[in-house]
Amino acid sequence: MRFNYKVIVNVLGLLLLLNGAFMMLCIPFSLHFDDGDLVPLLKSGGITMVVGYIAFILTRKNKSKELKKKDGYLIVTLGWLAMSAFGTLPYMLSGAIPNFTDAFFETISGFTTTGATILTDIEAVDKGILFWRSLTQWIGGMGIIVLAVAILPILGIGGMQLFVAEAPGITPDKLKPRITETAKRLWLIYVGLTLTEVVLLWLGGMTFYDAINHALTTMATGGFSTKNASVAYYESPYIQYVITLFMFLAGTNFTMTYFGLHGKFMTVYRNEEFRFYAGFCILLTAICAISLYNRSGLGVEQSFRDALFQVVSIITTTGYVTADYSQWASSIVVLMFVMMFFGASAGSTAGGVKIVRHIILFKNSILELKRQLHPSAIIPVRLNKKAVHRDITFNILAFIMIYISIFAIGSVLMAWIGTDFLTAIGSVATCLGNIGPGLGQVGPVDNFSEIPALGKWCLSFLMLLGRLELFTVLILLTPYFWRKI
Amino acid sequence: MRFNYKVIVNVLGLLLLLNGAFMMLCIPFSLHFDDGDLVPLLKSGGITMVVGYIAFILTRKNKSKELKKKDGYLIVTLGWLAMSAFGTLPYMLSGAIPNFTDAFFETISGFTTTGATILTDIEAVDKGILFWRSLTQWIGGMGIIVLAVAILPILGIGGMQLFVAEAPGITPDKLKPRITETAKRLWLIYVGLTLTEVVLLWLGGMTFYDAINHALTTMATGGFSTKNASVAYYESPYIQYVITLFMFLAGTNFTMTYFGLHGKFMTVYRNEEFRFYAGFCILLTAICAISLYNRSGLGVEQSFRDALFQVVSIITTTGYVTADYSQWASSIVVLMFVMMFFGASAGSTAGGVKIVRHIILFKNSILELKRQLHPSAIIPVRLNKKAVHRDITFNILAFIMIYISIFAIGSVLMAWIGTDFLTAIGSVATCLGNIGPGLGQVGPVDNFSEIPALGKWCLSFLMLLGRLELFTVLILLTPYFWRKI
Repeated sequence: MRFNYKVIVNVLGLLLLLNGAFMMLCIPFSLHFDDGDLVPLLKSGGITMVVGYIAFILTRKNKSKELKKKDGYLIVTLGWLAMSAFGTLPYMLSGAIPNFTDAFFETISGFTTTGATILTDIEAVDKGILFWRSLTQWIGGMGIIVLAVAILPILGIGGMQLFVAEAPGITPDKLKPRITETAKRLWLIYVGLTLTEVVLLWLGGMTFYDAINHALTTMATGGFSTKNASVAYYESPYIQYVITLFMFLAGTNFTMTYFGLHGKFMTVYRNEEFRFYAGFCILLTAICAISLYNRSGLGVEQSFRDALFQVVSIITTTGYVTADYSQWASSIVVLMFVMMFFGASAGSTAGGVKIVRHIILFKNSILELKRQLHPSAIIPVRLNKKAVHRDITFNILAFIMIYISIFAIGSVLMAWIGTDFLTAIGSVATCLGNIGPGLGQVGPVDNFSEIPALGKWCLSFLMLLGRLELFTVLILLTPYFWRKI
Repeated sequence: MRFNYKVIVNVLGLLLLLNGAFMMLCIPFSLHFDDGDLVPLLKSGGITMVVGYIAFILTRKNKSKELKKKDGYLIVTLGWLAMSAFGTLPYMLSGAIPNFTDAFFETISGFTTTGATILTDIEAVDKGILFWRSLTQWIGGMGIIVLAVAILPILGIGGMQLFVAEAPGITPDKLKPRITETAKRLWLIYVGLTLTEVVLLWLGGMTFYDAINHALTTMATGGFSTKNASVAYYESPYIQYVITLFMFLAGTNFTMTYFGLHGKFMTVYRNEEFRFYAGFCILLTAICAISLYNRSGLGVEQSFRDALFQVVSIITTTGYVTADYSQWASSIVVLMFVMMFFGASAGSTAGGVKIVRHIILFKNSILELKRQLHPSAIIPVRLNKKAVHRDITFNILAFIMIYISIFAIGSVLMAWIGTDFLTAIGSVATCLGNIGPGLGQVGPVDNFSEIPALGKWCLSFLMLLGRLELFTVLILLTPYFWRKI
């Protein structure tokens, strides 16, 4: 047999069971706010759990425990798709988003922690359903942590083996279906930080409900808000600074956060990706703040705060909005657009290219000039003082090239589907990078409701592609994958 | 001694001597049209030749004939800069462009065969000066042929060693300052095609003067026109088709044209870059023509002709205009923008990334997916059925990454200098790719006169960078280059 279908279906069943259970978590909020969505939520959770249970039970026995790499690829992509397909149920059954295309867009935007929304009036949506919306992002963020530290490194995707502390030296051809101890530890940090943020936001004057929702979507670098105006609704500087801090933490490699919590500050300080990540945030905030201060009538503190918030929001691919950056100086708009291609740290919940890849790319470019002068010398790229294997550098270069090619092709497609130039490049950059707001008609104060249906499907695919580090999905589209060995 | 300064100055002197002689070629036109520029042209040519002669004479004796690679890099960059600096004289002394910044922009736009202009009324400029403007492009094109077939492959720039028929197997560390037989043969083709085009355009009803000017700038893939409306001035379909044909030829690897002229059609047909180049032109013309036909009230023939002309003009990085593509459907505008990153064939006079690099990039991306599944297999990229050495693939990937990074940084800079989003990305893409017209305020029916002075210097640098295949210039900015061995 080419694939171990039994195990694949078994894992998918398990995921759906969990997915259904998470839907049930929305019920308390629905009851508390008496929004009348008890039945739709029960139905959604019930259907999802029953389907998951059947899939799980039917494939429980006689399954070989051996999972091959190819099975791993299928599980990851199909897992995200299955979660998203069933995740539309609460929206559709409650009538919040009756259209399947829209509901799927909103759900995959959640599970991929993108945060692009088709809702024009978020505050009109029932509280139970809105909680589900925030929860999809948090679940997606949790999934990404497993993916980043346990699955992608083993699959050898895009140089991800570089970015985990306990990277396996060799790439085994068989994927052991265990979530490592590491993943469990990082989940604990994820949950702990989420709870801390809930408390801090609540203390700052948010309602408990809004505090939970924003904490869930901050830590996932998702960016769904319960307010139409996003975080701009909260004028309290305290709340905005707290969210900024947690966006920054969510965009930090969770392994670094682990080290930091254990007092190993030098390890964190010496980590090149963390230094560049923090450095970019500081530098870009300074540039934006100065421009904003000179140009607008805003005071020093607010210029700084708006700049800091938007820079961290875009770099971490969260996508919250406190200020309409599309109205800032055109150089800053271009800069914001370029920042959509940064991505924060690998091993965080952030999407996009990831800063470590840019570091490798930059160092390799400089070295290539050196190699030009000394063609016979073998000069490897170094990261954290260790030589990076040429295969990995090669893989990263290919990753970034494919990323940019997909961006170009996607932009042409979106324009062909019927959006203007800025909307086309903005929507593709933001969806592929799992950010949220784009440019043009999908700018920071707009939403994706006006995008044609075909465009929504196209963007949904791009969100998945970006979230799963391209290769995981693209490999399924090659003939090599389906060929018998 | 670190560099062989004597030989460097000697070669630069020789280049200036030639440059001055070329200026003198404008005198017959000046006299014929009685535009009163005899004295300015004599002065310009005189100054340039005297300076060149002094530099040449002073360094003639006792010079070691040994040229090292590093000397080669310096000669190429300084050569283009010296030609451009002295090339401003006819503009400035005649008063056609009194400002040095503008004159330098126009001259380097000529020598790099870009075709971006700061002139708002081209037809008001004296005929002798306008001929110099066209001539700078033709000289630049000639320089590029030598560079592409004789110098860059030896310097090992951006995988250029791949693209020449008689590529040296190994990269010698010493650069022999000879223009190969190949270069001479290709020059003959360049001159021959230029003369043929002059005759064909003249027969089509162009004045002899305009025919020469357009032939000079077509074969260089330059795109300077003597008319404000560019080629749109000539409504004759014959003229437009002739120019399209010669743009296509100018964007073809001159070695392929050589084979074609010698009846070796199968060699041309089997060449992968040529097939992709022709294929892209056909495919993209079809897409644009269909969109244009459906959208505008134009007939079939004109839709086809406009689409063909603009596609070939952009892909070959010529930059002539017969239709304002910025007014076409937004998907086509995005497509045109993406096409600015194509570049035509290596070994032609076209600028930009070059199609062969895209082929290698594309093949490598597909193979990277295959490598993902079989990490232990060594799978090289193949071009024209031959395996491409991994170092070259690596070099090409780095080239494209640096190209895109420079595009991003340049765009932010241009926006900071004070242009809007579209103008920023459009002007950088078109100058780096040596095309000519961009988007926004520097679109196909506009010009670069309104760009702030700092922006003009920035764009001038980008034109040089793009023309000299990035590495040649960038390497001068690294400490390695200036370090003693």
